[in-house]
Amino acid sequence: MSDQPVARLADAAGAVAGNGILDRRLLLRQGLVFGAMAWLPPGAAAGQAGSPRVPGSSRPPWMREPGREFSPYGVPARFEQETARFPAPNRVQRNNGASWTPLHLLEGTITPNGLHFERHHNGVPDIDPGGHELLIHGLVNRALAFSVPDLLRYPLESRTCFIECGGNSNAGWNRIPSRSQAGFFHGLVSNSEWTGVPLGVLLHEAGVKPGAKWVVAEGADAFAMHVSIPLAKLQDDALLALYQNGERLRPENGYPMRLVLPGWEGVVNVKWMRRLELTDQPVMARNETARYTDLMPDGTARMFSFVMEVKSLITSPSSGMVLKGGPGLYQVTGLAWSGRGRIRRVEISADNGRTWADAELQEPVLPKAFARFRIPWRWSGAPAVLKSRATDETGNVQPERRELIAQRGRHGFYHYNGIVNWSVDENGVLGHVYDEVAAQQTGTPDIDADWD
Amino acid sequence: MSDQPVARLADAAGAVAGNGILDRRLLLRQGLVFGAMAWLPPGAAAGQAGSPRVPGSSRPPWMREPGREFSPYGVPARFEQETARFPAPNRVQRNNGASWTPLHLLEGTITPNGLHFERHHNGVPDIDPGGHELLIHGLVNRALAFSVPDLLRYPLESRTCFIECGGNSNAGWNRIPSRSQAGFFHGLVSNSEWTGVPLGVLLHEAGVKPGAKWVVAEGADAFAMHVSIPLAKLQDDALLALYQNGERLRPENGYPMRLVLPGWEGVVNVKWMRRLELTDQPVMARNETARYTDLMPDGTARMFSFVMEVKSLITSPSSGMVLKGGPGLYQVTGLAWSGRGRIRRVEISADNGRTWADAELQEPVLPKAFARFRIPWRWSGAPAVLKSRATDETGNVQPERRELIAQRGRHGFYHYNGIVNWSVDENGVLGHVYDEVAAQQTGTPDIDADWD
Repeated sequence: MSDQPVARLADAAGAVAGNGILDRRLLLRQGLVFGAMAWLPPGAAAGQAGSPRVPGSSRPPWMREPGREFSPYGVPARFEQETARFPAPNRVQRNNGASWTPLHLLEGTITPNGLHFERHHNGVPDIDPGGHELLIHGLVNRALAFSVPDLLRYPLESRTCFIECGGNSNAGWNRIPSRSQAGFFHGLVSNSEWTGVPLGVLLHEAGVKPGAKWVVAEGADAFAMHVSIPLAKLQDDALLALYQNGERLRPENGYPMRLVLPGWEGVVNVKWMRRLELTDQPVMARNETARYTDLMPDGTARMFSFVMEVKSLITSPSSGMVLKGGPGLYQVTGLAWSGRGRIRRVEISADNGRTWADAELQEPVLPKAFARFRIPWRWSGAPAVLKSRATDETGNVQPERRELIAQRGRHGFYHYNGIVNWSVDENGVLGHVYDEVAAQQTGTPDIDADWD
Repeated sequence: MSDQPVARLADAAGAVAGNGILDRRLLLRQGLVFGAMAWLPPGAAAGQAGSPRVPGSSRPPWMREPGREFSPYGVPARFEQETARFPAPNRVQRNNGASWTPLHLLEGTITPNGLHFERHHNGVPDIDPGGHELLIHGLVNRALAFSVPDLLRYPLESRTCFIECGGNSNAGWNRIPSRSQAGFFHGLVSNSEWTGVPLGVLLHEAGVKPGAKWVVAEGADAFAMHVSIPLAKLQDDALLALYQNGERLRPENGYPMRLVLPGWEGVVNVKWMRRLELTDQPVMARNETARYTDLMPDGTARMFSFVMEVKSLITSPSSGMVLKGGPGLYQVTGLAWSGRGRIRRVEISADNGRTWADAELQEPVLPKAFARFRIPWRWSGAPAVLKSRATDETGNVQPERRELIAQRGRHGFYHYNGIVNWSVDENGVLGHVYDEVAAQQTGTPDIDADWD
């Protein structure tokens, strides 16, 4: 193996798209000097050769005194306090609204339970599981009630999948590009390993009557949040989840039990599940008529828009970050997901969409779950625009913003999945921009994004 | 679909091994009444037919008042406080020792970060990442130092794998069966999605000199915990991890950076990584000579026993639990893992090993990671002994305790991977037993298990 710095290889080879996008496998074959600093032993003059020695004389303070004892339940380091959810409560009723996952500060694919996004309509109920049951009734042969101990006797299933609020990324509809950080613009989506009882098993226990087509799912919060769900989805891949990432659900994620409907918008993944009523038609609840619907250009309403379409986002570098090391090599990484199945490819552009190259997808790539993508990039020091474009296994491709607006108009609030453009200026500062065509598409005033 | 209760199916069909072990796919084809209770609307007499109605008149207290507001970082429900790590500190020096993951209270395969087991030799250091660097030195062409921002410019990799302390399950060597709950007997193992820089890339940057065969890895804790690791493992699949389950490492798991050596015993997954010194031979540190070695029957010492062998454990039902519902159907579930690759199969016995049946393995089954297994069981009400036996993709089979003792003797402390027997008495109370042969294998007094 060569012992010489090999950064020059990036100049001579490895470029796979314009403006410095490099072969995603380059780093696996060949080291590149990204960020290492040459180290000299204490006292050695700069540039002087010498065998480095154990730096025992410079032990930091935390090596000079015994550390903290054991703890029953760990918490993050005190130096990582900024890695927190960003609350966006309703201005009047502060327990109604959403809080955002800081996707730009995370890596890998799992969202830690403490950082899973929140969407509540009247706060987080403090449910004693000993006094809670799930009722299955309506068009069934036998109404049944299930306590937590009842459910834990059933064979469980685990499923890693994302849950995304239908209103995620809604600032993308606005005429002025959002200046929020990536997670506080797109972070009403999180990815967990959910474990619970397949809904199909429980419905079979109750006995589905002919004519049942819909299920009204209601939560045990003070809003009694309820929506209508097609019965077929509950019989397909839905879980009544009891565990999230190994442990029992957190209160804000539906403790003691919630629906998980892989790939479908967050609002139908009903939390604090209290009852499932089988019916022949939807109940036309507030959150499937006045909300979670979109006015289309032809004047009709887009309703029951359950599936979350293919989407991606560069999480680093992203809006608000700075390329502190100046021109040179950086990792470009992010997340892609689709409610229709697996992510098949993610393409990256550093020249505002003129040329694209495939990013590496972290294995295993699971259906209806976050896929982590990564590609190396050599920033020249000149302004640039970074984009990511995802394609799922059904062949659906994430649209440009202008394509989405042409299709859906300017009165939408939900289901925004347009390509995101991060700008890089000559100082290495990242921002958010629309492309020229999209910027000219003015229309009605922006929607007031207060959650209710 | 039939609307009749189908519990009788379990009597007529589906048994695949003695004493009530049922076909693992039975539940996927056909519902079985595990725990549902027939529900009657309020006011209806028992046994009276009637269409259940929305139980609006009996709304629980948490539906009658608004819930809690948003939180920046969530915590578990107050009703789940017993799901905590169990600390086993050294009797003299309380920041030396271990704390155990409550595996018997968890489901799925991911261990939440707050519950990952701990093993410290002088407590958890409070490291300011701004004052911390990793040094690579010794038999290299250029000594290099890496800060956290340096490392974050490199392309990262994610890897879901277990980390298991070499001393996990050491009570299995004792002459009297441990009466601990499953997690506090076998829970010095946890499973996470780790994200970091491949060590091979960093070593290549430094330039490995001919003659380098070992690497001394030292942590920045007050013990300066250090061990010797074969260079080839670091060039193979090792990570310098910065993230665990999506977020930055927790202090007790090595913040701001640690080694992750998939499949190898915990002590070499050095936390709080401070320096890697390339050498031509091991340094013979305390934790590879006086500790983490085993005296064999022939008087030699078993050293550098890095790989954690194939192992499994029924987590539920397990020691200390009670089958509260009486005779009937239960889920038997647990975890299997191997440091040599994927788990290929897990067999379950309910008749003390006379007959076995394959449990269902939750997909995806990943190499050197927890595999979750499940199988339905119909408990007859008579005493029973439950066992699990794992086989990995290299063909290694988890041994019975007597086989392990025959091979390794009675002076061992580390690397216990024998089959675990959970007894069920006529009251449904679970306990831990040895089989008759093993019970007669008395020998030297039990090892004092105080951690140091």
